[in-house]
Amino acid sequence: MTSAEIGLIGLGTMGAALALNIAEKGFRIAVWNRTTDVTRRFHAEAGDLAANVVPTESLKDLVAAIKPPRAIILMVPAGKAVDDQIEALAPLLGKDDLIIDAGNANFHDTNRRAAADLGVRFMGIGVSGGEEGARHGPSIMAGGNPADFERVKPVLTAIAARHGDTPCATWMGEAGAGHFVKAVHNGIEYADMQMIAEVYGIMRDGMGLGAADAAAIFQKWNEGTLRSYLVEISGAVAAATDPLTGQPMLDVILDAAGQKGTGRWTVIEAQHLGAPVPVIEAAVMARNVSSRVDERKAGEALYGAAPQKLADAPSADELEQALIAGKILCYAQGFTMMTAASATFGWNLPLPNIARVWRAGCIIRSDMLNDMASALTEDATRNLIMAPDFARRIEAALPALRKIVALGALNGLPVPALASGLAWFDLMRTARGTANMIQAQRDFFGAHGFDRLDGKDAHHGPWGLSAS
Amino acid sequence: MTSAEIGLIGLGTMGAALALNIAEKGFRIAVWNRTTDVTRRFHAEAGDLAANVVPTESLKDLVAAIKPPRAIILMVPAGKAVDDQIEALAPLLGKDDLIIDAGNANFHDTNRRAAADLGVRFMGIGVSGGEEGARHGPSIMAGGNPADFERVKPVLTAIAARHGDTPCATWMGEAGAGHFVKAVHNGIEYADMQMIAEVYGIMRDGMGLGAADAAAIFQKWNEGTLRSYLVEISGAVAAATDPLTGQPMLDVILDAAGQKGTGRWTVIEAQHLGAPVPVIEAAVMARNVSSRVDERKAGEALYGAAPQKLADAPSADELEQALIAGKILCYAQGFTMMTAASATFGWNLPLPNIARVWRAGCIIRSDMLNDMASALTEDATRNLIMAPDFARRIEAALPALRKIVALGALNGLPVPALASGLAWFDLMRTARGTANMIQAQRDFFGAHGFDRLDGKDAHHGPWGLSAS
Repeated sequence: MTSAEIGLIGLGTMGAALALNIAEKGFRIAVWNRTTDVTRRFHAEAGDLAANVVPTESLKDLVAAIKPPRAIILMVPAGKAVDDQIEALAPLLGKDDLIIDAGNANFHDTNRRAAADLGVRFMGIGVSGGEEGARHGPSIMAGGNPADFERVKPVLTAIAARHGDTPCATWMGEAGAGHFVKAVHNGIEYADMQMIAEVYGIMRDGMGLGAADAAAIFQKWNEGTLRSYLVEISGAVAAATDPLTGQPMLDVILDAAGQKGTGRWTVIEAQHLGAPVPVIEAAVMARNVSSRVDERKAGEALYGAAPQKLADAPSADELEQALIAGKILCYAQGFTMMTAASATFGWNLPLPNIARVWRAGCIIRSDMLNDMASALTEDATRNLIMAPDFARRIEAALPALRKIVALGALNGLPVPALASGLAWFDLMRTARGTANMIQAQRDFFGAHGFDRLDGKDAHHGPWGLSAS
Repeated sequence: MTSAEIGLIGLGTMGAALALNIAEKGFRIAVWNRTTDVTRRFHAEAGDLAANVVPTESLKDLVAAIKPPRAIILMVPAGKAVDDQIEALAPLLGKDDLIIDAGNANFHDTNRRAAADLGVRFMGIGVSGGEEGARHGPSIMAGGNPADFERVKPVLTAIAARHGDTPCATWMGEAGAGHFVKAVHNGIEYADMQMIAEVYGIMRDGMGLGAADAAAIFQKWNEGTLRSYLVEISGAVAAATDPLTGQPMLDVILDAAGQKGTGRWTVIEAQHLGAPVPVIEAAVMARNVSSRVDERKAGEALYGAAPQKLADAPSADELEQALIAGKILCYAQGFTMMTAASATFGWNLPLPNIARVWRAGCIIRSDMLNDMASALTEDATRNLIMAPDFARRIEAALPALRKIVALGALNGLPVPALASGLAWFDLMRTARGTANMIQAQRDFFGAHGFDRLDGKDAHHGPWGLSAS
């Protein structure tokens, strides 16, 4: 009976895909779902892999089917369902058994569970790549005790995506570190998508290009520095034709973006950490405004449409350079946020390994992440924009980014994420900024005080009685 | 003994100022502080007003000194101190007595306290204007039961700032509505200050103006559309001379802005409400980056300084127009956030009255708020950018805003708040945006589906097996 090397609870889309992936890699896996029919059907439809699957019909049977010390993956909805499942499962386990929450947990919950006395070992892992990734190779960001990670590493590295020979499954730190890194990934995903949408908008409205022309540009970019999953699929969707109308797919899709709140969550955590991520903020804002379709129509009716097909339209090469620069700036912000999280939560998030684990299996996978891993390996404490390789790329791409942002501003073609990235960069490379004005105002109305450039010990202005 | 019309607990800076204000307006006020010496000193130093002050040395004495049904203002630090004070005070009170939290409470806490069974009546009011405002006329944003507000309205309107004959003390809605509106005020304050700092930066770095020249420009603006407390004090601080060095004050103050977290808090709440406030986000980000002084110096060393004194520098009039536009866009975002809060929390936040209550007593007071009140009175459900008077102003100011943002982008003079406002505006006036690309991507990798422009019932693309 105790023949399985690992267990899994929750045979929904993601859980089933992950279980098949594990079975396919040669591990015997015991599975349980609260609805027994689901478990039976899963086993019946597992085909050749059924031999490696042990279906069980009770938690007790599941536990009995796994060799101790046991490792059991939870793939149930985030939140209360995880707590409930742990509560039901833990009493059946020994103290050396390990529960692995592989769902989309909020990292604060994972921190809480890791700190609680559950009577068993516990870790939380972020699994990226959707159903397809779970089935054939996800990117895995693990958090928890490093010894626990070592125990399950053979399984996790076997099922993970591979970049060359390197499996994309890495230990990120204690407790909620894995789920935290996954969340930053999701925020960057929002930003990458938004910046692509912005350059697509310049192609369509500024250059007057049709979807097929845009597709050709994305496809070409995917052969160069921007090679990535999101640029690849942007080319694919731009090239696709609507079966119903024969129009390009892009031209029949409503311009109102949905969101599940993951980008918003990243922005909020960044604020709590005092390390804002303005490119992601712009992406979340743009999705929000996109859903206000009627207001936008009224806005255009009132103010008129932006000019179409600009006389001084940029070239596709300039758009490519702008996107390269924007992408570097966005990732620099994301890594800065992770550095702040390490300081706040007592982690030591391995930035080079994070760049590596994102190179395959996840939505934001790209060639550039490989170079980021190299730059962060040289010095992980240095802001990415200060790494020589990326400074060189930024300098090369900056004129194009400046041009695109300026053209957008002058003509009313909105590029909020690119503009936010540029403004952040310019703040970061300005030795003498303008916050002296803010400090003076704050001292004037609130006596908050200020530091001086000359270090002298006089922290208030001579505002006198005018401070009313 | 029971001679006082109102009570107050907490004689710190704000509490003492508020108590003197109340006494000065002819109300007899009983006061108590947990340190009796503070109470005695307050009374001893109250001068002519001492006759209207009843110092008490125990909570029991305080309660006994006030005519029932009693109203007692708490002015103690936000958070646990408020809960502790309520817990100590409530058992001494009758069910018709009223506790008024006038501190800087998080509105979620005020919501919680209003919903709890405290055994007494409870309301939370936001008081803006700092010590000076509390002493001589704050802006008061009240939340709670409207009947309770009516009871204390004579006192609140007597002590409040006045705009013409209108007192700036208004009921905003149930429970935490008052503290919520105060928080939005604080976020807008961050944004107003940041936009002023940005145009100051263009004066200094783009136009090559000294502080005295900048002062003259701010002073001139304060005679026109931008007439406001913050523009007034910007002129004052720019005109001030450092007694130690004889240099302009602005030139000796370190460009690293402090923050107490109130702007951050507004940004986070806006995200929770799904109504992002990008100009405030940019202001919070800019303060954060300003504090990274060493990184900024390294950035300038690596990338070189932005060009100083631009050949194509804007005029002061153009800067004024850009600031007018940015300000309108920022307030439009703030009011949008409040509309979202009304929907989420079951309030009906009175936007015209909010604009009115901000016209005097608080940091963001300005002439333009009077016009905003008028526009919102016409139609409070309409976005401010759609109100004819403000649409006219935006159209007039837009060319300048576009020019400033473009110049900033091209030359590396950062204007993050102005740029965020403009990008948001352009998203809001674009009938056909670019989120169709985002929806296509989301459907491609996650089968999230999309709506179609033609309303046809086909919500997935023909991406086929390529969706990996």
